[in-house]
Amino acid sequence: MVLPFDILEYQKRLDDTKELMAKKGIEVLLITDPANMNYLSGYDAWSFYVHQMLVIVIDEPQPLWIGRYQDANGAKATTWIYEENVIAYPDYYVHSEIRHPMDFMAAILSQVGQGTRRIGVEMDHYYFTGMAMERLKKGLPNAKFQDASLLVNRVRMVKSDQEIEYMKRAGVIADLAMTKGIDSINAGRRECDTAAEIYYHLIKGTPDYGGEYPAIVPLLPTGDHTAIPHLTWSDRPFVEGSPVIVELAGCYKRYHVPLARTVSIGEPSNKLEVLAPVVLEGIQNVLQTAKPGVTCSELEAVWSKSIKQYGFEKEARLGYSVGLNYPPDWGEHTASIRKGDQTVLQPNMTFHLIPGLWFDHDGIEISETFRVTDTGCEQFTTYPRELIVKQESSMFLNSNGQIS
Amino acid sequence: MVLPFDILEYQKRLDDTKELMAKKGIEVLLITDPANMNYLSGYDAWSFYVHQMLVIVIDEPQPLWIGRYQDANGAKATTWIYEENVIAYPDYYVHSEIRHPMDFMAAILSQVGQGTRRIGVEMDHYYFTGMAMERLKKGLPNAKFQDASLLVNRVRMVKSDQEIEYMKRAGVIADLAMTKGIDSINAGRRECDTAAEIYYHLIKGTPDYGGEYPAIVPLLPTGDHTAIPHLTWSDRPFVEGSPVIVELAGCYKRYHVPLARTVSIGEPSNKLEVLAPVVLEGIQNVLQTAKPGVTCSELEAVWSKSIKQYGFEKEARLGYSVGLNYPPDWGEHTASIRKGDQTVLQPNMTFHLIPGLWFDHDGIEISETFRVTDTGCEQFTTYPRELIVKQESSMFLNSNGQIS
Repeated sequence: MVLPFDILEYQKRLDDTKELMAKKGIEVLLITDPANMNYLSGYDAWSFYVHQMLVIVIDEPQPLWIGRYQDANGAKATTWIYEENVIAYPDYYVHSEIRHPMDFMAAILSQVGQGTRRIGVEMDHYYFTGMAMERLKKGLPNAKFQDASLLVNRVRMVKSDQEIEYMKRAGVIADLAMTKGIDSINAGRRECDTAAEIYYHLIKGTPDYGGEYPAIVPLLPTGDHTAIPHLTWSDRPFVEGSPVIVELAGCYKRYHVPLARTVSIGEPSNKLEVLAPVVLEGIQNVLQTAKPGVTCSELEAVWSKSIKQYGFEKEARLGYSVGLNYPPDWGEHTASIRKGDQTVLQPNMTFHLIPGLWFDHDGIEISETFRVTDTGCEQFTTYPRELIVKQESSMFLNSNGQIS
Repeated sequence: MVLPFDILEYQKRLDDTKELMAKKGIEVLLITDPANMNYLSGYDAWSFYVHQMLVIVIDEPQPLWIGRYQDANGAKATTWIYEENVIAYPDYYVHSEIRHPMDFMAAILSQVGQGTRRIGVEMDHYYFTGMAMERLKKGLPNAKFQDASLLVNRVRMVKSDQEIEYMKRAGVIADLAMTKGIDSINAGRRECDTAAEIYYHLIKGTPDYGGEYPAIVPLLPTGDHTAIPHLTWSDRPFVEGSPVIVELAGCYKRYHVPLARTVSIGEPSNKLEVLAPVVLEGIQNVLQTAKPGVTCSELEAVWSKSIKQYGFEKEARLGYSVGLNYPPDWGEHTASIRKGDQTVLQPNMTFHLIPGLWFDHDGIEISETFRVTDTGCEQFTTYPRELIVKQESSMFLNSNGQIS
């Protein structure tokens, strides 16, 4: 088995996690976020649609993996933990109205002597449901539970050099998919055809390394729907004169580099022509400011000031910490680039800067993913940062809007 | 706006839901499962990575949608509910350590006079976290909460004719992607190249209709990893003489038709040659038995008896109800085809029959998705149901295993 990281790197992650556990008085940490499971153990499979967890006991060298019987071989194949620490529940616990996997897990925790300790749980992570909490409490009545949301996420914020290397590969894949995707956008072609092109290149990757599934599908709002950032594609054809937003992420070894661009099919609207330079100047100003010691809140202030001179304001945060993840989100849920976020930038923190502006009937998104360096920041992608205008398309259309 | 279903169909779904609510004494139902949100309102966007909900009040004609500010336009664009029933929380609630979206939602529920009622929540659904439950309870101290997991899922089990029509389209897309995917499997090509082919065709669909993202990515375990059903692809090349499992789903209007096949690159192993006819006979026996009035448990008994004559047993369930869904699962989490499941088959119920057999170092998966008809059942796909043997590949390889 070849793990994506050296065993010493996993050990350091585990040590850092235990240090945070100790600070918070947590003796046993139950990890249900698949990205955190992967980060600490290497575990990588699409099995998070059933209950599973990684158990970190503060005074035990090895984590426990507890999951579904048919996934246990995957835990043996993709992690560094000993086979005897892989514990499986029978299939009759899956989507059952009688049994719940947390009943089994609580029983195991009792059996291994952890049933009366201070147990941290990822209270606000996907895949740790209200029912999971209820059944765990019922199964471990003498444990003391406390919230450990984002504990491991915080350890993940500063990347190792190997993680940065994987993100660079994800960046190459993002550039490739953006290039091929935008090349395919023409009036008369369907949105799904462009989404298919994007997906093809995201997954095929380069001749040297393949890509993986991103934690969010490519987003492709068009026309009026550019006001709605999280709509996916349809099978309607693109229309001459209308805008298209492409947001995607390259993914390698589950590390993401997101990238967004706004495209005009033919002449851009006056609105887009006004918005694009405002957003581009704002991004430039933020990137020139980003360096170790600066806070996320300070970056937001630079952005706000930059767009305010043109009379604009932004409601939403303009970025977030990014890296290792699984569906449904590539964001790390720790630092956000917004007012009041006092996270101090450190070298090898990585952010997706996506200062989208959305109005009632249109919007613009141009983004960059960057790494904080020792003295400033650097981007992961090279795709031109501009409003993309596709002029040639109309030449190939007949009067019915069909490609001739 | 064109909704995928007639407004009367949404009305019937809502009425059926309210009937179940009444039976269970639920006055207000908080729906956080994106498939259930879509089913009742039409809402369709990749926004389920933040907290959002659809509120069904038993004595109100219209649901409320509550979600993030930047997603509210999406609720207006994709649902049949009135714009004034779309309520948005500010962005500073997103991934914040101070504020939680459920605080906002609890306040809204109080404001609209629902704060002291009997409230049903989807306790064991993804995207309803332990923290969500805790904050709701805190924000609505006078409400009586009860578990309403799977309430709407049960309404979804019997499909309308329009839903079946969408699943037929998903079936056409599944056949197409399986054909192109298996065509691309050859020794020396990489797993990611085949995954890219599959994705391309899943999304591009046919000239008449495009495809959508499936709720689970294509699964592609190869070699030893065929023992591990939920591994995704790598960028390693396929190897002559080794097995590959392909599990995918066509998706149209969020309706899924999954399909799995096992491929041997060159001569199959003795094990696969023994297993394949056993599984094929078992599937045939189950499909011949499936009809209205039969229970899921009875189908399992037919399977068990069929494979037992060759000395095999199966640990996991052999199928489940399938249809409308979002990541991370295309299964509906209601009926499972397994011992003890007393679900009685009715016309237009739809199941994915996937009686995989997994051992320590290998496995086999051959599946069919079927609809229960008035007198029996029918499949959604036509891809040959057999162990697929790819013989031609070796002819194009040189002695280093490279394609020449």
